[in-house]
Amino acid sequence: MKKKLLMSLFGVVFAFPLLAQTWIWYPGDYELWLGNKMNNRRTERGAFFPPFWKMDSHYVLVEFSKKVDLQQPEEIEIWAEGQYNVKLDGKLQFGSPKKIMLTAGKHSLNIKVHNQLTPPSIFVKGNTIHSDSSWKVTFEDKEWIDESGKASDTSTTIYMDAGCWNFDMPEQLPSHYKLALKKQEAVKIKTTTASIATKSSSLVSNVYSMKDIGELFDFGKETFGYVTLQGLEGIGNINIYYGESPEEAQDTAYCETLDKLQLTGSAVINLATGISSPLKGNYTVSNSKAFRYIYITKDKSVKVDKVSMLYEYMPEEYRGSFRCNDQEINHIWDVAAYTMHLTTREFFIDGIKRDRWVWSGDAIQSYLMNYYLFFDKEEVKRTIWLLRGKDPVTSHINTIMDYTFFWFLSVYDYYMYTGDKHFVKQLYPRMQSMMDYVLQRTNKDGMVEGLAGDWVFVDWADGYMDKKGELSFEQVLFCKSLETMSLCAALVNDTNEESKYFALASALREKLQPAFWNTKKQALVHNRVNGKQSEAITRYANMFSVFFDYMTPQQKQAVKHSVLLNDSVMKITTPYMRFYELEALCAMGEQKAVMDEMKAYWGGMLCEGATSFWEKYNPTDKGKQHLAMYGRPYGKSLCHAWGASPIYLLGKYYLGVSPVKEGYKEFSIKPVLGGLRWMEGDVPTPNGKIHVYMNNHCIKVKADEGSGYLYIVSKRKPTASIGEIEKIAKNTYRLWIDTRDELIVKY
Amino acid sequence: MKKKLLMSLFGVVFAFPLLAQTWIWYPGDYELWLGNKMNNRRTERGAFFPPFWKMDSHYVLVEFSKKVDLQQPEEIEIWAEGQYNVKLDGKLQFGSPKKIMLTAGKHSLNIKVHNQLTPPSIFVKGNTIHSDSSWKVTFEDKEWIDESGKASDTSTTIYMDAGCWNFDMPEQLPSHYKLALKKQEAVKIKTTTASIATKSSSLVSNVYSMKDIGELFDFGKETFGYVTLQGLEGIGNINIYYGESPEEAQDTAYCETLDKLQLTGSAVINLATGISSPLKGNYTVSNSKAFRYIYITKDKSVKVDKVSMLYEYMPEEYRGSFRCNDQEINHIWDVAAYTMHLTTREFFIDGIKRDRWVWSGDAIQSYLMNYYLFFDKEEVKRTIWLLRGKDPVTSHINTIMDYTFFWFLSVYDYYMYTGDKHFVKQLYPRMQSMMDYVLQRTNKDGMVEGLAGDWVFVDWADGYMDKKGELSFEQVLFCKSLETMSLCAALVNDTNEESKYFALASALREKLQPAFWNTKKQALVHNRVNGKQSEAITRYANMFSVFFDYMTPQQKQAVKHSVLLNDSVMKITTPYMRFYELEALCAMGEQKAVMDEMKAYWGGMLCEGATSFWEKYNPTDKGKQHLAMYGRPYGKSLCHAWGASPIYLLGKYYLGVSPVKEGYKEFSIKPVLGGLRWMEGDVPTPNGKIHVYMNNHCIKVKADEGSGYLYIVSKRKPTASIGEIEKIAKNTYRLWIDTRDELIVKY
Repeated sequence: MKKKLLMSLFGVVFAFPLLAQTWIWYPGDYELWLGNKMNNRRTERGAFFPPFWKMDSHYVLVEFSKKVDLQQPEEIEIWAEGQYNVKLDGKLQFGSPKKIMLTAGKHSLNIKVHNQLTPPSIFVKGNTIHSDSSWKVTFEDKEWIDESGKASDTSTTIYMDAGCWNFDMPEQLPSHYKLALKKQEAVKIKTTTASIATKSSSLVSNVYSMKDIGELFDFGKETFGYVTLQGLEGIGNINIYYGESPEEAQDTAYCETLDKLQLTGSAVINLATGISSPLKGNYTVSNSKAFRYIYITKDKSVKVDKVSMLYEYMPEEYRGSFRCNDQEINHIWDVAAYTMHLTTREFFIDGIKRDRWVWSGDAIQSYLMNYYLFFDKEEVKRTIWLLRGKDPVTSHINTIMDYTFFWFLSVYDYYMYTGDKHFVKQLYPRMQSMMDYVLQRTNKDGMVEGLAGDWVFVDWADGYMDKKGELSFEQVLFCKSLETMSLCAALVNDTNEESKYFALASALREKLQPAFWNTKKQALVHNRVNGKQSEAITRYANMFSVFFDYMTPQQKQAVKHSVLLNDSVMKITTPYMRFYELEALCAMGEQKAVMDEMKAYWGGMLCEGATSFWEKYNPTDKGKQHLAMYGRPYGKSLCHAWGASPIYLLGKYYLGVSPVKEGYKEFSIKPVLGGLRWMEGDVPTPNGKIHVYMNNHCIKVKADEGSGYLYIVSKRKPTASIGEIEKIAKNTYRLWIDTRDELIVKY
Repeated sequence: MKKKLLMSLFGVVFAFPLLAQTWIWYPGDYELWLGNKMNNRRTERGAFFPPFWKMDSHYVLVEFSKKVDLQQPEEIEIWAEGQYNVKLDGKLQFGSPKKIMLTAGKHSLNIKVHNQLTPPSIFVKGNTIHSDSSWKVTFEDKEWIDESGKASDTSTTIYMDAGCWNFDMPEQLPSHYKLALKKQEAVKIKTTTASIATKSSSLVSNVYSMKDIGELFDFGKETFGYVTLQGLEGIGNINIYYGESPEEAQDTAYCETLDKLQLTGSAVINLATGISSPLKGNYTVSNSKAFRYIYITKDKSVKVDKVSMLYEYMPEEYRGSFRCNDQEINHIWDVAAYTMHLTTREFFIDGIKRDRWVWSGDAIQSYLMNYYLFFDKEEVKRTIWLLRGKDPVTSHINTIMDYTFFWFLSVYDYYMYTGDKHFVKQLYPRMQSMMDYVLQRTNKDGMVEGLAGDWVFVDWADGYMDKKGELSFEQVLFCKSLETMSLCAALVNDTNEESKYFALASALREKLQPAFWNTKKQALVHNRVNGKQSEAITRYANMFSVFFDYMTPQQKQAVKHSVLLNDSVMKITTPYMRFYELEALCAMGEQKAVMDEMKAYWGGMLCEGATSFWEKYNPTDKGKQHLAMYGRPYGKSLCHAWGASPIYLLGKYYLGVSPVKEGYKEFSIKPVLGGLRWMEGDVPTPNGKIHVYMNNHCIKVKADEGSGYLYIVSKRKPTASIGEIEKIAKNTYRLWIDTRDELIVKY
């Protein structure tokens, strides 16, 4: 095992690996490859169901290199995934050597690996030589533009810093990576008849007919994994129907996922894939599924002793927490955290039943929730790499215009929460080419409109939403994306591009209000077609303009009433856009109203029996209406990442913790009870956490790293156990925190 | 077996496949994938030696589609390489169905395939439904620019015509493709001591030491394949050293390729790859090699009964031929044809010992020779796809600027010889992005100079060649490439781009002479640095300008003496550039001089014992100097495609046959004896051949297809068995050929 040196510094525990070698690859390549596996696991009633966007792949031939200067002679060991060669000081070595002896002094090492199936990667271990992200790697792309314009005879190869994750042992082959498994049992079993409630089910031809009498297993709550049929034997057919609800599991003709197995006596054949496995007692299905219920029907000649499952999950530490006096809110936080955990797989996916794909608009919310729950930055990076794919860009991310913009925004968010500038640097060329794609598709006013191939999504809505012309929502996101590009260009010291993007952002920003603000309605209108403002008001652009600060304080207050709290404006029925709607209200200090909304909306799902939060929830729906979506009776996902937003809202706007400078070098703590009597919780930071407790007369804060202001709203001047309290406005005070000790403020 | 309908039309035999189903894939993808296998087979003294340019790969997820209108119900069978799903009329079918029943009427079929390891491909067979190139395929790239600029809500996917080759049976999986094999025996064996002639050989550390006494096997001529050790047994080591010459095979420390095997009694371990195979009598090495000689050393404890080989080759029909009164020329043609055949593998490669890679400058010559020998158009298309790779373009083709230009030229050549406009259409988007890359790198004068990452190659030369600034050679090729783009844009009806490229080509064309023509020297100078003409004269730009017709007739005659026949201008020592040098002389009617050159140069190699033609030949070299190159004693390839140019010269400039309109719809026959007493031969056309016989008083022609002029140079008016002879200049006549009968002209 790898030895670690544990070091306590200012009360914070840092882990410094002593032997840092790890498997390395071309940055982003492993992520794309693993993502393709993830995105290709969706099935729909037994059919393979891959995404409908371009799937990029790893570079099949890459070269790793490292320059070393050795005090002592040293032998290194080499492991590789792929066919490889080794050059030592430019000399090609015989074969694919497993060990090489290096003399003392300076050396250059080059290892070239070819692998079509899985990403070329290496693991190198010596006394002082270790494969890690300080190694360089190239796919043999050559220098593209000589900035001096000077002719050159020499070939120039572009090298990137190698990518890695946590495969720190030679036998931990990156291509063999699997999530963790844990056995779970059903909590209830009942023998029942399949509901043939759906009228047209008789039209669906099954591969073979079978009496629809079977057993319903309830695993107690939404879960995910591989069903195991214990003691399976006999000759005949057995079918497994999965359901997030009992209705779905028992509707054999319309449930979204299923397994059809045929037993030959000695083998089990999966009828969907045609794959045959030897039958020897226990049989575990090969493709994971999301479910709470399974309904099993079988021929009498087939026998099963017991049904269990292997729960599959990403091991995560719950670094964030939240508790308060309101048990319903605590329950909401717990179910939201579980929803997040279920959808935090190799990547942040949308839902575990469907689509099981990585979607950019969904992912940016998972990232934000993650910063307040797991703070798993590797998972964020992997998801960002995967969503972007490779050049050339042939469509928007996930084909959705708004999802391209959310992708840009997510990069700067990541930098702010983690302080990881290196990642921005690695990604920056792909940010540029993505933005080039967007800029090549703007209209004469420099605005974006849906062109052929673009999906202008915005949100699922229960009413009509016009997608024609220039949508204010898309321009607001585009503007923020240009600002993000300018900030990221500055981070990588690309001064020219920083100015270019800044100018583009400013130009667009100046056009937003003339184009969309309607003084009479005191709101941004939904869109402009052929230069003409429409009459429609929707919430989207208005709420984003609030927390992007694209409005004056007066406009924000106006919009609060004319749009956000105005019931005549089309209501949002997805937790996806509720996330931003409630964020906008919180940003305007409406934590009390938002607390009521959380209890009504997420509490409403809990009242409907939710054990994880849903893709969409319309409180006016009844019974099975809650299960339907996309014209399918069980089309709706009942465990959807974007359902988990209370995690984010409670951490950022109640505990009130957010980074002011990158990686929490400076933080801001603005705790707001929002109607609670007391609350407490942790917000993770890169190397620790910030703990906040608050009740009606006292705030306690303990921060493991960073400094920053604690803001207190109080009618009288508060007192602090450490530090000086300053008044900054009427009833508003602040206190600079620069200690690792617990700080107590009475107010 | 597939049934064919043979149809005789105008004496031409056409083959129409009755059942046309074949394996299909995304166009270019199989070609890239197979090319990666090819390019990754090079080894150097036991080490894997892949290329140093970006290696692209197939799209891992593609969707095939077809719309049908059935008279009768029909069952189709489906085979796929990869995981797949099937949509019939938009409805996803259960599992991955092998058979589907379609009712009479209109249907749409979509088959989506995912495969990381090998190109996703399908084979569909029904009564009337067959997978073929009429199927559409997409990698889910979306419409890029809406030309009307109109907003659209609908997603638009770009479909291409599917790619295919000749895998016409379901069990002929494209990924299992292998070249043909034939057993061959050594013709001579002698026991000998390895030559330790190379001084520094003692510095080379072998994996283990062994007495260098062994057996030398001579296979009689240059060959290629897998050595088989028959009756192999024992425990110990056995080494195989390969040589294109006996010197190379016996120089165990410096031969370019080798195999080191270790026998454990029950297994053979390849020490380079570490791969172990069971030892059971015969052992065939796993990686093919090029050689005429092999030298085997072994421990006494290892026993081999006999050594043979499996010759590996692409089955090709020799559709072109050439015979004449001069046996040396006949011998040259035969050895050139054999050289071509050895280097015509899955793709046209450079040399069979080294590099075994596909190089664009080499390939364009192989294509041209191929049009006069095999007329294998599939091989040309495969090689063109592979060389181009995929977007984004990150370097010149093979990293070489001139090789990019040769690639453009080769596409139009292909169209002219084959008439296959469909291929140009499929390729055109990649031609555009390749030219975009070039255009983004031009200097303020619109000329190309070597920038960082560019290899400005031109030719291997025995003297100094300046690569700085604007090389006249590169501008001439660039200009021709722009003309090619304009022609290809016209072929695909892209009028805007046709004009754009035409304007760019014209502008550059007008700059060539002012920039490079030196009136005093009556030649184009080699280069211009910072706007200043250099003094150096090289042959390259001058000879290309002759056959590109970039010079006036007067300039051509001047250049013939000032450059081409001027011994003080640096001589060309590669058959590569001799190809163009001799072509330029032929284009000016110097067939007699070229005949002498062929006999001296290629005849010279035969005198040195060549059984295939070489990468480079300097007649002034002596003994082992002929084997050395790149600073290595056996670095030179003795079987190099570009060595085979007499095939092309004899077909195009002696038999005199070439296409005037695409695919030989119109041909031109200008036979020239060039000092021979008689000659005859066939030149292949897309669906037949043109046979030409000529002696000093008679020409016979028989053309299977097309029409065109036969040109006769004669002091008196010739007489023809069919048709009217017209005089077109002094001593020059022509005759329009529009018959399938043999035509006899007496002159």
